Amino acid sequence: MTQHTSATPGPSTALMTDHYELTMLQAALHAGTAERRAVFELFPRRLPEGRRYGVVGGVGRALDAFERFRFDDADLAVLSDGGVVDDRTLEWLSSFRFSGQISGYGEGEIYLPYSPLMVVESTFAEAVLLETLLLSIYNHDSAIASAASRMTMAADGRPCSEMGSRRTHEEAAVSAARAAYVAGFENTSNLEARRRYGIPTMGTSAHSFTLLHDTERDAFTAQVNSLGRGTTLLVDTYDITEAVRLAVEVAGTDLGAVRIDSGDLGVLAHQVRAQLDSLGATDTKIVVTSDLDEYAIAALAAAPVDAYGVGTQLVTGSGHPTVGLVYKLVSREGEGGEMVPVAKKAKDKGSIGGRKYALRRLNARGVAEAEVVSVGTPPENDGNDRPLMLPLVTDGEVVGRESLDDARARHAASRAELPLRAQSMSRGEPVIPTLHV
Amino acid sequence: MTQHTSATPGPSTALMTDHYELTMLQAALHAGTAERRAVFELFPRRLPEGRRYGVVGGVGRALDAFERFRFDDADLAVLSDGGVVDDRTLEWLSSFRFSGQISGYGEGEIYLPYSPLMVVESTFAEAVLLETLLLSIYNHDSAIASAASRMTMAADGRPCSEMGSRRTHEEAAVSAARAAYVAGFENTSNLEARRRYGIPTMGTSAHSFTLLHDTERDAFTAQVNSLGRGTTLLVDTYDITEAVRLAVEVAGTDLGAVRIDSGDLGVLAHQVRAQLDSLGATDTKIVVTSDLDEYAIAALAAAPVDAYGVGTQLVTGSGHPTVGLVYKLVSREGEGGEMVPVAKKAKDKGSIGGRKYALRRLNARGVAEAEVVSVGTPPENDGNDRPLMLPLVTDGEVVGRESLDDARARHAASRAELPLRAQSMSRGEPVIPTLHV
Repeated sequence: MTQHTSATPGPSTALMTDHYELTMLQAALHAGTAERRAVFELFPRRLPEGRRYGVVGGVGRALDAFERFRFDDADLAVLSDGGVVDDRTLEWLSSFRFSGQISGYGEGEIYLPYSPLMVVESTFAEAVLLETLLLSIYNHDSAIASAASRMTMAADGRPCSEMGSRRTHEEAAVSAARAAYVAGFENTSNLEARRRYGIPTMGTSAHSFTLLHDTERDAFTAQVNSLGRGTTLLVDTYDITEAVRLAVEVAGTDLGAVRIDSGDLGVLAHQVRAQLDSLGATDTKIVVTSDLDEYAIAALAAAPVDAYGVGTQLVTGSGHPTVGLVYKLVSREGEGGEMVPVAKKAKDKGSIGGRKYALRRLNARGVAEAEVVSVGTPPENDGNDRPLMLPLVTDGEVVGRESLDDARARHAASRAELPLRAQSMSRGEPVIPTLHV
Repeated sequence: MTQHTSATPGPSTALMTDHYELTMLQAALHAGTAERRAVFELFPRRLPEGRRYGVVGGVGRALDAFERFRFDDADLAVLSDGGVVDDRTLEWLSSFRFSGQISGYGEGEIYLPYSPLMVVESTFAEAVLLETLLLSIYNHDSAIASAASRMTMAADGRPCSEMGSRRTHEEAAVSAARAAYVAGFENTSNLEARRRYGIPTMGTSAHSFTLLHDTERDAFTAQVNSLGRGTTLLVDTYDITEAVRLAVEVAGTDLGAVRIDSGDLGVLAHQVRAQLDSLGATDTKIVVTSDLDEYAIAALAAAPVDAYGVGTQLVTGSGHPTVGLVYKLVSREGEGGEMVPVAKKAKDKGSIGGRKYALRRLNARGVAEAEVVSVGTPPENDGNDRPLMLPLVTDGEVVGRESLDDARARHAASRAELPLRAQSMSRGEPVIPTLHV
């Protein structure tokens, strides 16, 4: 795990918080309960309907945002001017530093119902403040990573490019590119993701470029002259067959690729492949990019497609733009100083009290058999259990930072451990059961 | 319309852009076509399935982001180091200033299929660069505003609070609070939205606050002591009937409200209302907050509910997290200097060439009858047509800035013009037809 030592630059994240976290803090300070030791857990009660597994996204972003979670003077002025909390609470917030421990699943790890993606141990006051920020980051990034993983699995080795920035919030777009990369996407169209995270970017031209020119030939010539013969020409502005002919005429048989962005992609891919081959452009690749999701990708498995560009369905989580992760108090200090497991009683929103451990049970061949999530002491490791909790924050200091490539490698390894039925695109039960032993 | 004169602070937005916009720029600079005059339009080909109307969101945010769309040295270094574009293009970008005109629908306005939400007129080079950033902001914020409008309409005057921050990206959360406010929400839980946009915030306590304390009585007492009798007590941690009894015992009949966050909200609201009334707490309000969407809100119309808190379904656009707005070149300068209407030919992704005007046709009673979107000169106004295009950017300078309350008022007025069938929650056709006269 690569350690980065630089502090996280950027503005305070302290107000990316729900109002009630601060009023709870105020009331607890008054009642003398704010400093009680407390354990919160961030976990899913279930997977999105029909999904076989989830993928942890956002760990690195959460650690960055955690480091910037400080109430500076501007933050405090907002709370003071708005009468959000009283002076005593403002005073407490002004010196707030999280002093506790956070452990959790590594980024890119597979998760299942009740997997404790994060366990936050500190005082109630310190831990409750992180609720909204941690949930926002984990819910979004895990939604994208989970969808992306299904897509890269369906693509079965063919490269996938993330191109969805325009169909999601401009900041979510950058995070989506990052989460997709963790889950196996090759690159992104988003230049800010290149800046922030070093993710490779790609892209050549849109229909507007063809339409700008007086003829398609002018457009193709302009592009090849400037970007080289290895470029990707977009061939569906007017007539695809004519455009493919023209593309090879202009660029020669060294043409890098053609892109198809509309119509029946499977049929068109076969037609275009045959045409390219007949023109001698046997190495020219075919990229498809129209409203793809994991089902469409799987359906194109037998078509001569070389790469997929995925947009809307990726950045919206392919039907599940959020994954329903919750952040719940599971244990807190009692009157006598002992830790007391706690849980809400509601039938539809129940939880399990007590601090959890988690491990993945593997069989002798290294295939995952169960997610073990339980209270108490983990069993003696018989060699087939893989512990899942990593230290993320120790005594208030971030210790769990790693490179994005490490997260990407973890995802590939973790997914490879799953039984083959994980590859099913159809709706069904989680690929392995969660056991509360 | 309130004019704000301050420049927009904040980091550059120039890299919130797809890679291909810059490679198109490079190729067009080489070909001598970059400076051709061009008109791009931002519009929906259709509404999300079953929706009767859409609501324009993000105009003010887009204008702020537009002002920060400048390629500074750090941006240029990313492009240069990554070999994204060549030196000539970097040079062009370093002095980039948008010099053209942008007009469009006001924020909060109702829109329909093919409504030209934005018309961007400049050179190709200048206008193509804005594609991704404008689409990201409009697609996200309009998705939220459109969902929010259905919710506030279903609530029929009862206040709605936005509480979805934890179920969306942390920055999207702030924008979602803003878009919801435009579409009639009363307030938000998101403190950053208070800071940035002055939106009122609300919130009192979560289940963790009750669970922190040794008894529910301790928790309620702590909250009332600190936040006052006007606070909202959460009554579904253990047993609702007991909690309501206890709440009134602790706070008295001046208790502000109780909140129910699980179970059958309609049944529970009736039970709790009767219990509160029997205890003399006839002014104590009932707030409900569990997985609400516009359908659930409508179903609670006859229940004694005083306010709705809406989370997940709001920030995910109630089934439509993006609204499919596109940004298309519709007209550009030809070889002879004349403007040439252009459009892609694909059957499934066609568009209409030529610069559009738009107006809403009203009948004599002021009820909307049609969206008129057409090329050419608008007809003489017979007094019943409402022009929809406002100046947003003139000669590169933002002129369309307004207060959020102005946008909120526009939405209320625009929605009130729609025929009554706009209130139908069921799936159907757009409430008024779009006419290309």
